[in-house]
Amino acid sequence: MDVFGFLNLNELALGLSNLSMFPYFDMAHYIISVMSLREQPGALEVSQRSPFACWFSSMLYCFGGAVLSALMMADAPVAPLTNTTNLLLASLMWYLVFYCPLDAVYSLASVLPVRLVLTVMKEVTRTWKVLGGVTQAGRKYKDGLFVMIAVGWAKGAGGGLLRNFEQLVRGVWRPETNELLKMTYPTKVTLLGSVLFSLQQCHFLPIQTHHLIFIYTLFIVTNKTRMMLLGSSSYPFSAVESLLYKTLFVRPLTFSPLTDSTPSCLSSPFHNKPNGSASNKPDQTDPKDAESSKKTD
Amino acid sequence: MDVFGFLNLNELALGLSNLSMFPYFDMAHYIISVMSLREQPGALEVSQRSPFACWFSSMLYCFGGAVLSALMMADAPVAPLTNTTNLLLASLMWYLVFYCPLDAVYSLASVLPVRLVLTVMKEVTRTWKVLGGVTQAGRKYKDGLFVMIAVGWAKGAGGGLLRNFEQLVRGVWRPETNELLKMTYPTKVTLLGSVLFSLQQCHFLPIQTHHLIFIYTLFIVTNKTRMMLLGSSSYPFSAVESLLYKTLFVRPLTFSPLTDSTPSCLSSPFHNKPNGSASNKPDQTDPKDAESSKKTD
Amino acid sequence: MDVFGFLNLNELALGLSNLSMFPYFDMAHYIISVMSLREQPGALEVSQRSPFACWFSSMLYCFGGAVLSALMMADAPVAPLTNTTNLLLASLMWYLVFYCPLDAVYSLASVLPVRLVLTVMKEVTRTWKVLGGVTQAGRKYKDGLFVMIAVGWAKGAGGGLLRNFEQLVRGVWRPETNELLKMTYPTKVTLLGSVLFSLQQCHFLPIQTHHLIFIYTLFIVTNKTRMMLLGSSSYPFSAVESLLYKTLFVRPLTFSPLTDSTPSCLSSPFHNKPNGSASNKPDQTDPKDAESSKKTD
Repeated sequence: MDVFGFLNLNELALGLSNLSMFPYFDMAHYIISVMSLREQPGALEVSQRSPFACWFSSMLYCFGGAVLSALMMADAPVAPLTNTTNLLLASLMWYLVFYCPLDAVYSLASVLPVRLVLTVMKEVTRTWKVLGGVTQAGRKYKDGLFVMIAVGWAKGAGGGLLRNFEQLVRGVWRPETNELLKMTYPTKVTLLGSVLFSLQQCHFLPIQTHHLIFIYTLFIVTNKTRMMLLGSSSYPFSAVESLLYKTLFVRPLTFSPLTDSTPSCLSSPFHNKPNGSASNKPDQTDPKDAESSKKTD
Repeated sequence: MDVFGFLNLNELALGLSNLSMFPYFDMAHYIISVMSLREQPGALEVSQRSPFACWFSSMLYCFGGAVLSALMMADAPVAPLTNTTNLLLASLMWYLVFYCPLDAVYSLASVLPVRLVLTVMKEVTRTWKVLGGVTQAGRKYKDGLFVMIAVGWAKGAGGGLLRNFEQLVRGVWRPETNELLKMTYPTKVTLLGSVLFSLQQCHFLPIQTHHLIFIYTLFIVTNKTRMMLLGSSSYPFSAVESLLYKTLFVRPLTFSPLTDSTPSCLSSPFHNKPNGSASNKPDQTDPKDAESSKKTD
Repeated sequence: MDVFGFLNLNELALGLSNLSMFPYFDMAHYIISVMSLREQPGALEVSQRSPFACWFSSMLYCFGGAVLSALMMADAPVAPLTNTTNLLLASLMWYLVFYCPLDAVYSLASVLPVRLVLTVMKEVTRTWKVLGGVTQAGRKYKDGLFVMIAVGWAKGAGGGLLRNFEQLVRGVWRPETNELLKMTYPTKVTLLGSVLFSLQQCHFLPIQTHHLIFIYTLFIVTNKTRMMLLGSSSYPFSAVESLLYKTLFVRPLTFSPLTDSTPSCLSSPFHNKPNGSASNKPDQTDPKDAESSKKTD
C-alpha cells in the first residue's frame, strides 16, 4: 500500500505496532472499565454490600475478553490470574476508583479531558486484543476464518458479551437484553476489526499487519473521540447497516405462516413480560444501557 | 444375531452404517431444526429485531450437541465453526427458512409429506450423532461407561439440553422449565440410544455396531413417523417408565420429615415464587438460605 | 514447628495426613450433601416430579467442586463420572436419603449425634479437597499463587459457588443471591484454607504440609462442632472481617455519585419482577414448551 510510503507513514505505523500496552495503556483500560462498572445502576450499592463481588465484577470487566476467548479455545479461564502484575494493577485501579478517600480518583478521571485521554488509550488496547485473539486462534486452527473472527471478537469485546453473567455476580438479572440482541457500538466495531484482521491473516486482504493496525486504531480512536465530544452515539456505518438490513432481512410478504406468526405476536407481550416490566418501559432502561456500555468495552 | 442373516438384512444394515450424512441428511437436520426454532413463540419477532441473535440461536439448534459435548470433553466449543461447509450450509438454511421471499421455503417444508421426509432424515442423523459422541468419549476414557453415555446423550440431544441458554440469546428466560425437570421425547429417546450404544461399545451388548445402528434407527424413525401421523406424543416405553417410577420413587410414608416437607409443600404451588417473593421478603428466605447452606458444603 | 515435636503430635499429624477419604469419609460427605439438598425449599417436591433432575442436583452437591475446578483448569468436567465407584456410592446415598422406605436413612441421619459425626467427617474431606485443588493447580502453574488459591477454593466450595446453576436444574432461579454477594461460612472457611495451603505450597509459610493439614482440620472440625451444638452461625473471624471492612471499604464522603446511586434504588424492585410474573402463568407457557420442543431435536 504505497500511500503509506507516499505519506511517510511507514515508520509511524511500525512504531505503533511495536507499542507496548503495559503498563500505561493497560492501566487506562482498567480505570475506564472499572469506572463504567461503577456507573452501572446498583454497582455502588454492591460495592458497599459485598466488596468481593464488586472486585470479581471488575475483573470480569477488565479480563472478560481473555476469560471468554479462553473458554472458547478450551484454554484454562483462570489463566488471567497467572499474570500477577496485571491482576494486581487491575485490583489497585478497582480499589482506587471505588474506595479512594474523598473519591479523588473517580472525580479526577471523570473530568472530560482526562476521561477522553484514558478512553482513547483504552481504545488502542482494543486493537491489540483483537489481533491477539485472531492470531491465537490462527495458531490452533490454520485458516479457520470463522474461528479467528469469533475468538478475536470475543477477546476484544468479551466484557460486553459476558454482560448477563457479570450482572449475575452483582445479583442483577436482565434476560431481556444482551449484546447479541442489541449490539452496542464497542461490540460492533470490535466485530468489524476482528473480521478485518482475520481476512488479513488469511491473506484475503492485501495489506501488511502494521498498516492495518494503524488504520484500524486510527479509525476507532477518531470515532470514539467524536462520539465523546459530540455526545452522539451515531455509528459511521449505520447507513450501510440499515441498507443491508432492509435488503436482506425484511419479513417476506406472506400469508400461510400467519398461523404461526400470530402465536408469536400474541405471545410477544407475554413472553417479554417476565423479563419485562422492562419491556414496558424500554426507554427507561435502554438509554442507560447504551450510555453505560458505550463507555464500557 | 442370525435373525439378520436369516432375513438377509446384513447388507442393508451394512449399507446403512456406511451412509454418509453429508450433505442431504445434514441439510434436513438444519432445516427442521431452524423450523422448530422459528415456531418458538417470539422467534419471528426476534428474527426481525436482531437477525444476528436469530442466526446464533439457529446455530445452537443445529450444532448445540457438538458445542455441549465439546464443553463436557474440554475440547474447544468453537470447533463446529471450523467445519466451514456445514456452517455455511446451516446458515443458508437459516436464511431461507426465515427470510426467503414469499416465505416459499418454510411454506413448502411445512407441507406434511415434505416435513415428514425431512423429519425422518433428521432422526437418522441422531443415530450418527449419538454414536459419534459415544466413540469420541470412548477414545478418551477407555470403558468409561457413564462418560460415554453422558457425552453421547449430550451430542444427540444438545439442542434440547442447552434450551435455557439458547432462549437467553433470544431474550427469553424460563427457569421453571428445563429438559432435566421435564424430559421431552427426543431427549428420552436419545438417552436410550446413548445407553444402548455405550453398552455395545463396552461389549456388554452382544451385537455388532451396524446391527444396532440399524435397529435403533428403525425404531426412532418408525416411532417418529407414527407420532407425526397420529399427532400423538405417546411414548412406547411410558408404561415401563411409570412402572419403574411407581416402584422406585414413591414418596415413603413418613412422619418425621413433615417438618421440612411442609415448607416445600407450601412453596410447591408457587414453587417459582421464591424468585418473586424472595425479592419481596428476603428476610423470610435468607435465614433458610443461611441455615441450609450452612449445612451444605 | 517444634511445638508439634514438643507435644508429640508429629505421629498424629502424619497419621491424619495419610488418612484415606474413601470410602467412609466420602460417604459421609455424600450423605450430608444430599441431606442439605433435601432441606432446600421445594427439593422434596422436585424429587417426586423429576427424580432425574433431583439426582443431577445431588451430584452437583457431591461433585460440584470437582466440576467447577475442572472447568477452571480446562479439564473435562465429566471427569467425575469416570470414577465409577464414587459415582455409584453417591447415587446410592442420594437414593437412600430421598426414597428409602419409611424414610429410615434420613430420619436416622437427622438425629443430632449421628448428624454431628457425619458433618465432622464431611468437614475433614474439605481439607483434602482444598489441598487437592491447590496442588493440582500448582502442578500446571508453577508458583501461580492466585490460580492455586482460586482452584483450591473452587474445589473445596464448588457446590456453594455453583448454587445458582444447581438451583436452575431444579427450576429455581434466585439471581439476587449468590455466594459472592453473601458468602456463607463454608465458603469463607474454604477460602481461608485455600489461601493457607497455597502460601504453604509456595513456601511463604514455614510449616510442613502435614502440620498444616492437622491444624486446619482441627480448626474447621472444632468450629463446625461448636456451631452445630450452640446452633450459632457466628464466625470466629467476624471481628477481624468487620474491622478490615470498616478500614478499607467505607464509602468515601462524596456528593457526585449520588446521581448514579439513585437509579440503583429505583431499579431494584424492577429487576426482580421478571421471575415473579413468569411464574404466575406456567400453565400457559408449559403446553407451548411441550408442543414446540417435541418438534425440536
